[in-house]
Amino acid sequence: MAIKRFHGESRGRCRAVVNSGLVYAVATDTSSGKSVAEQTRRTLEALEKTLLEAGSGKGGLLQATVYLRDMSTKAEMDAVWCDWVGGEENWPQRACVGADLAGADLVEIVVTAAQT
Amino acid sequence: MAIKRFHGESRGRCRAVVNSGLVYAVATDTSSGKSVAEQTRRTLEALEKTLLEAGSGKGGLLQATVYLRDMSTKAEMDAVWCDWVGGEENWPQRACVGADLAGADLVEIVVTAAQT
Amino acid sequence: MAIKRFHGESRGRCRAVVNSGLVYAVATDTSSGKSVAEQTRRTLEALEKTLLEAGSGKGGLLQATVYLRDMSTKAEMDAVWCDWVGGEENWPQRACVGADLAGADLVEIVVTAAQT
Repeated sequence: MAIKRFHGESRGRCRAVVNSGLVYAVATDTSSGKSVAEQTRRTLEALEKTLLEAGSGKGGLLQATVYLRDMSTKAEMDAVWCDWVGGEENWPQRACVGADLAGADLVEIVVTAAQT
Repeated sequence: MAIKRFHGESRGRCRAVVNSGLVYAVATDTSSGKSVAEQTRRTLEALEKTLLEAGSGKGGLLQATVYLRDMSTKAEMDAVWCDWVGGEENWPQRACVGADLAGADLVEIVVTAAQT
Repeated sequence: MAIKRFHGESRGRCRAVVNSGLVYAVATDTSSGKSVAEQTRRTLEALEKTLLEAGSGKGGLLQATVYLRDMSTKAEMDAVWCDWVGGEENWPQRACVGADLAGADLVEIVVTAAQT
């Protein structure tokens, strides 16, 4: 069992963990006063950076969970998601649900991806 | 890394993805005016169809997340779930939580399953 | 495909399932009249017991999802989590979101862990 952990700024948790060719990653954007579109852009930018560091990328996406503070913003999030994720060869299985989030966060995205 | 993707009707996401013998799948029922029991039945029917296409099935279930719009309907969902899932040799680890869902959806189910 | 299932007290679902060196586990504390801190302690105690039974432990943690009934209790949960999880060699990728939970449950924790 080899586990590689990518620590972020938070205690007690990692932004990514790698094991057996799979990357488990999470990203959010903690800046306040932003729209959902802008927070989604920044979240996906951070997520992609983490995936690349961990030896994966958009092409390795398997499963995604998108948590939205307000489901009425789903279309706004989705437009940014679709631009980001690219062609259908990248599309993960995804669920998007409304949930309360920490601080001023409007969106939080968790993925499982294969190393590529 | 071989990834097989099962596209549904939505842009930017798949109803199932297969990698390394694991199937990541999601299902929901977007028809309105239905009870939770009826939506759960239709969701599980769609999920099972997807699992079979992807080389798995009820016997391969490992992990499930059930999102319910209204947790007061959990007993109603659970009755349908228990009928569907069958004997204890099929039971996955499962969490059921209340979350806001898109459109008229009352229930959404995400699973990880092993190919069988 | 070898799947090992750890049944709990509930019908239709397991508290843990093992497949291909990965453990999928869930824990909660159904006792009422407890604080979030106390429920978190009891939940993590149950979770750890299950992980050990399943051939894993804190050192194998890969991914965690913490569902909290009330996100204003996150700091209280986090203090217990950080004490429990220990050194950064154990830290999983983690998301913590607010969601409605069954009965009197204030916290529910789902993890994926590698067998150690």
